[in-house]
Parts: sequence; C-alpha cells; structure tokens
Amino acid sequence: MEKSQNGEHNDDASSICGYDSLHHLLKDNLKPHHFQEVNRLLTGLNCGKALETIALPDSATALSVEHGFDIQAFHFHADKEVLREPRVVRVGLIQNSIAIPTTSHFVDQKKAIFEKLKPIIDAAGSSGVNILCLQEAWMMPFAFCTREKRWCEFAEPVDGESTKFLQSFALKYNMVIISPILERDINHGEVIWNTAVVIGNHGNIIGIHRKNHIPRVGDFNESTYYVEGNTGHPVFETAFGKIAINICYGRHHPLNWLAFGLNGAEIVFNPSATVGELSEPMWPIEARNAAIANSYYVASINRVGTETFPNPFTSGDGKPAHADFGHFYGSSYISAPDASCTPSLSRNRDGLLVTDMDLNLCRQYKDKWGFRMTARYELYAETLAQYVKPEFEPQVIRDPLLHKRS
Amino acid sequence: MEKSQNGEHNDDASSICGYDSLHHLLKDNLKPHHFQEVNRLLTGLNCGKALETIALPDSATALSVEHGFDIQAFHFHADKEVLREPRVVRVGLIQNSIAIPTTSHFVDQKKAIFEKLKPIIDAAGSSGVNILCLQEAWMMPFAFCTREKRWCEFAEPVDGESTKFLQSFALKYNMVIISPILERDINHGEVIWNTAVVIGNHGNIIGIHRKNHIPRVGDFNESTYYVEGNTGHPVFETAFGKIAINICYGRHHPLNWLAFGLNGAEIVFNPSATVGELSEPMWPIEARNAAIANSYYVASINRVGTETFPNPFTSGDGKPAHADFGHFYGSSYISAPDASCTPSLSRNRDGLLVTDMDLNLCRQYKDKWGFRMTARYELYAETLAQYVKPEFEPQVIRDPLLHKRS
Repeated sequence: MEKSQNGEHNDDASSICGYDSLHHLLKDNLKPHHFQEVNRLLTGLNCGKALETIALPDSATALSVEHGFDIQAFHFHADKEVLREPRVVRVGLIQNSIAIPTTSHFVDQKKAIFEKLKPIIDAAGSSGVNILCLQEAWMMPFAFCTREKRWCEFAEPVDGESTKFLQSFALKYNMVIISPILERDINHGEVIWNTAVVIGNHGNIIGIHRKNHIPRVGDFNESTYYVEGNTGHPVFETAFGKIAINICYGRHHPLNWLAFGLNGAEIVFNPSATVGELSEPMWPIEARNAAIANSYYVASINRVGTETFPNPFTSGDGKPAHADFGHFYGSSYISAPDASCTPSLSRNRDGLLVTDMDLNLCRQYKDKWGFRMTARYELYAETLAQYVKPEFEPQVIRDPLLHKRS
Repeated sequence: MEKSQNGEHNDDASSICGYDSLHHLLKDNLKPHHFQEVNRLLTGLNCGKALETIALPDSATALSVEHGFDIQAFHFHADKEVLREPRVVRVGLIQNSIAIPTTSHFVDQKKAIFEKLKPIIDAAGSSGVNILCLQEAWMMPFAFCTREKRWCEFAEPVDGESTKFLQSFALKYNMVIISPILERDINHGEVIWNTAVVIGNHGNIIGIHRKNHIPRVGDFNESTYYVEGNTGHPVFETAFGKIAINICYGRHHPLNWLAFGLNGAEIVFNPSATVGELSEPMWPIEARNAAIANSYYVASINRVGTETFPNPFTSGDGKPAHADFGHFYGSSYISAPDASCTPSLSRNRDGLLVTDMDLNLCRQYKDKWGFRMTARYELYAETLAQYVKPEFEPQVIRDPLLHKRS
C-alpha cells in the first residue's frame, strides 16, 4: 500500500536521482576523505569525533526487514563531568506514510495506520527507547489542504482511541510516548486543536501541548480547522528528562523555540508534515539553529510519501486544481546543542531513528558558549513590549543626504 | 606576506583535503546530476532556478588576478510585482587576512591593511557595488585572544583615519560602506567599543552601531576590551535600502536578528571573526536561519588566515600556551529570505563577493510565509517580561508518577 501512495504522484527530484537521503548521496558518491570533510562542515562532526552507530537488538532489525521500514541508530556523546553522572536517554522517532487510500472508510484508515505502526513501535520498544515521538497528526492523512470539514471526524478527545492505543505500548515498554493528534476539545464547545499528548512511561497521560503557530502558506491553510494553541510552552518533566513539543510550523518561529528553552527543555520534539517544494531547504537549517541557540537537543520528524485526496483542490498559486499537495520528504533527524546532527532517515520510506543522547551536553554547551548569560533578555523584553504597541515606531537612522544628487 | 600568515599554523582539515570551499569540493567531486540535487538540498536552489552568476567588468577581474584575491558574483531574483518596480541592490563583501606580521609597528600594520584593501575596494567600486561591507575590526589583527591591553592603541574615534580612508572610496564610487572598527569613544571617558560605522554614498557618516552581544567563549573573551553595545538595533535608511549590522557573536542570538527585523531591515550584515574549531559547522546554519525567520537578506563575512601573536597565551582549555587561535575560515556568503544562499568565498584566500539582490523578495516572503503575522509577539513580550523577574518560575508539568517503580 505504501508503494502506491508513494509512487504515483512523486515527480520531484528524488525520483530523478533515485537516492535515499542526502547522507547516502554524499557517502556513496564522494571519496572517503572528501566525504569526511564534507560531513564535518555539514554535520559538525569533527575528524576523529564521528557519530557512533548503535547496534540494535536482532528483534528490532528483523521487524524493520519484515515490514520494510528504515532503521538507523546513533549516539551523541558529552564530556564526563566530575559532579554529575552521564544522563543518557534513548530517543526514538517514527516517520511513516499513511496505510491505505484516503478514499477508504475513515475507521479503516485509522485502523490501518495503527496496524502499520505496531511493528515500528515494537521495534522502538525492543530497542530500549525511553522517549518515542510520532509524526504530526499521525492518526490520519494530512487532509488540511482540502479545506473539507469532513476530515474533522478524525479528531479525538485527549483520552481517545489513539491515546489508548499508545498507552498500552508505553506501559509495556516503560516508554514515554509523544502522540501528536487532531484533538476534539469536548469540554470547550467541541473545538478542534492540533495537539501533542504526552504519555508517561507508566501509561498515564502527563499532559498536552497545543500547536502554537498555525500556517497560512501554500496548501497549509490550517486555520480552516484550528487556531493558535492556548497551552503556552510547557516543559514535561518525565522519567527520562525534560521535554517539550514544538509542533510543525512553530519551527519557523525562533521565539517559540526560545520559550521552550526558557522553561528548561532538554529535548524539543518537532513533529511535522511538510513537503519538498515548500520547505525542504529549510529543513536542515531551522532545527539545528534552534538546538545551537537554545543549548538543547531537537528531534525533527516529517511524514513520508504523497497523500492523494478524493476531491481536487486549488492552492492559491494560479495552478490547476490537483488532488495531492506534494511529497512529504521524511528526512527525520536529531540536532545537538554542539551543532552536530545525525544523518536523516530516508526521504521515501517509513523509518525509525533511534538516538542516544547525554542530556549533560545541554548544560555543558550553556557553560561553553554562554548564550543565556549574554542574551540581554531585559533589552528584548522591552523591545517586544514596545513593538506590540500600535504606536510603535521602528528605530531608523535616515541618511540626511538621501535625496542629494550624486 | 599573506602566505606566511596563512601557511605556518594552518594544520586544520583544509590542508588535508586541499580544497577551496564546500561548494567547489562538491562540484568538483560529484557527478553533475548529483551535484544539482545536493545543491538543491543545501542551498535551496530548485532545479531550473540556479543562482545566476554576474559578469563583472574586466577591470575588476584584472585586479583580482593581479592581487590574488577570490572574486565571485551572483544574482538573487524576485518575482515581478504589479505595483512596485524591482529594487535590485548590488552588495559587496570583503574578506581578508592581515597584511604583515603582528610584530610590526602598529602604524605599519594598519597602513599595510589599507594598502591591501585598496585594490579590492577598487574592484568593488568598478563593479558598481552599491553597499560594501568589510570584516569585523578590519583595521587591525584580531588580537583580543591575547588579553593584552596594548592592542587598544588600534582603536579610533568614529571619524578617525579608517573612516576617512573609506569615505574617499564611498564618494568616488557612490557607494555605502559599512566599516567595522575598534572604536575609541572620546566623549565618554575614552572607553572602547566594537563598532560599525555606516558611511553614506556621499562620503558622509550616517551613524554607528555597537556590537550587542559580547562573547566569553574559548579565546574570545572580548569583554576584556569592550562591553555590550548601547546603540539598540538601528536600521540605516540609505540610498540603496534599509540595512542593519549584527556584529559577529550577535549571530548566535535569534532575538538580536529579530530586533533588526522588527525595525525594518532588508539586509543585515554580519561582519565576523571566527575560527574553524569553534564555529565552522554553525556558520552555514545561523545566518540562513535568520534570513528565513526574518524575511530579509543576510550578508555574512569572516576573516581569512591564521594570525600569530608575539606572546603566547592560554585558552582556558587546559592546553599549552600558543601564539595563534586557529584558522579564520573565510567562507563569506549571502542568504536570502527564500532559504537560498550563494556559494561561499574561499576558506583560505582574500575575496570579494558581489551579489545582486532584489529587495522586493523580503516583502514577498513576508506575504508568502506570514511569519510576522503568525508570530504572536504579545505572547512572547509577556513571556520575556516574566522571565527576567528574579521570581520567574518555568512552566513545568511534572509527571506525578515520576518516582513510581516500573
């Protein structure tokens, strides 16, 4: 099923070149010493400090072979400290295409995604993943391009069937699971939100976060369905570290990243759904910048494949109506506060990325670079307080000779 | 002279691979169709939308050959608008090593840099550059690693000899020049600042900006010499557009980039001095992120070569005293609001980067992505106002089962 979803409308560059990821494209086509230097420049991994891979249990790799998903595993190191033990957390990210056509019955579509995810979650669990994150609105096709309200039926309360489905895995594998869903807020007029549910390692619901920034770009006019979140910038203190969730379009907003950092996040997850034409060159930039600027890890997830919808729709770009909005390019990866990053998962296939990270690296990089210490927050609190006033006037120094002839 | 400054202590990866820049390393070693796709992913240039090069006048290329500096020229396009004409501005960036050893008489050192820059500035002027920017503290070696106060003698008043030197070029070529110097503030107790002087195209001084964020990292303990700037985030309205200057370490601070954007900057220059070991993997990330997030162009400049000082100094890293602090890796480049960027200048040679950019692209990308519209500044003004209070408490949702045994 995945193949047919992926293949038919995928006419972007990936099919021209037939490659799996930037990492593989470079590694397979450059001489080793050139690749090493390119890798240093692109991923921040200095010579002699290459990112180690992790050997996963046979059961996990067997599942990846049987069910045809990409599986990769890496390890970020931190320096040893005198007064603190290492705090190594194993993080898992899942990217996937939908399972059956969007013309199928809604119940079947959701059930098929559940079935598809089971072996990937099992692979994460049997790999000892501590914190697992799924992609944005994982329990449905990303139908918001259609502007059809019928897709609202996929929305669920926070404790709905998708949460229950994942709670059993959380309990079974002693694993925190971040579940980004389309939420129906029963207690507040049945409005819809784009929400991440954080499930604790005992299967309990720790809390939720609602997407802070809502796109109105290209096909992503998501405010048709839900508006800006009202949950602030919570950091969830879990058994495995302090985590936060910056959902999708929020990654374009440095202030959003900043606020999670101010609240103490050590890992910020960015479950996304974004397509090649729109954002692919931004994808390797924004998450890494956030990790650097805020001295935390960023775990980026994107969907895979092309989702075709029953009724054609236009995109506000003057082009003819069409039934899909391009290739979700996967490429999930993790960025570290030292400016390094993992290779990305496949652009085309479902995948599980497993990464060990020593959370001590966050404070080590705060101490090294001192970005918090040198940030002058008072200055910017004042700047923003002024800016939001209607009478704000920008600080402009005008050349008095502006209209003098040369 | 440049060779001896560059060669002796340059034992980093560049000498291993013997390449000039990442762009050339990839272009020279990948098959054309692979390079095209890698370039799309890395520089945001979609197929069929490659960055055009500009043909420069023979006089400019002759100067580059005669004086041995890299010269490259590109053109960013914007869509045609109905109600506005294109506003194409030609920007020039100069990166250079120092000219004679740091053991020479201070007068000779400064004079030698002037002499070295003359043909490069002439090449910019004869290429029709509208706005030219030099590197951070261009009129001296970047001696701040030494912590020796005698280098303060290089500091000049805003209207000192370095400004006068450049004013003549500004007038001659009808060119705005940004001149980052070490400033001596005569009227305020002779304190020192890290300052950019903005010279108008009539040779007049439009104003100054002082570096907002001061590093205390590795060898860059610059607060030995100067503290955080007191000039806010001015945008200079010049004959060729609204520009601002984010000096060096300020590029790590998203709020600094933001404030220049809020004041209306269309091009933000980032004159820098930074070395490979410390920051090279961050270099292609932060400026591009700022250009994306703030819908403006960013022009990044870094020094070139290794500067060796008379007296060894330590770096707070437990290593033996040494007399240089590594290789300034050049790699100056320009980022656009559409996430694209130019190739970088050489990692090893002096260079002039000339780039045409249609300033209309800034507003076009504000309209397309709507980052300003969706930014929720009120929320963050409140967040920062709370954060700077001593009694601030982060928004943390703690798992109530945190200490339950599995």
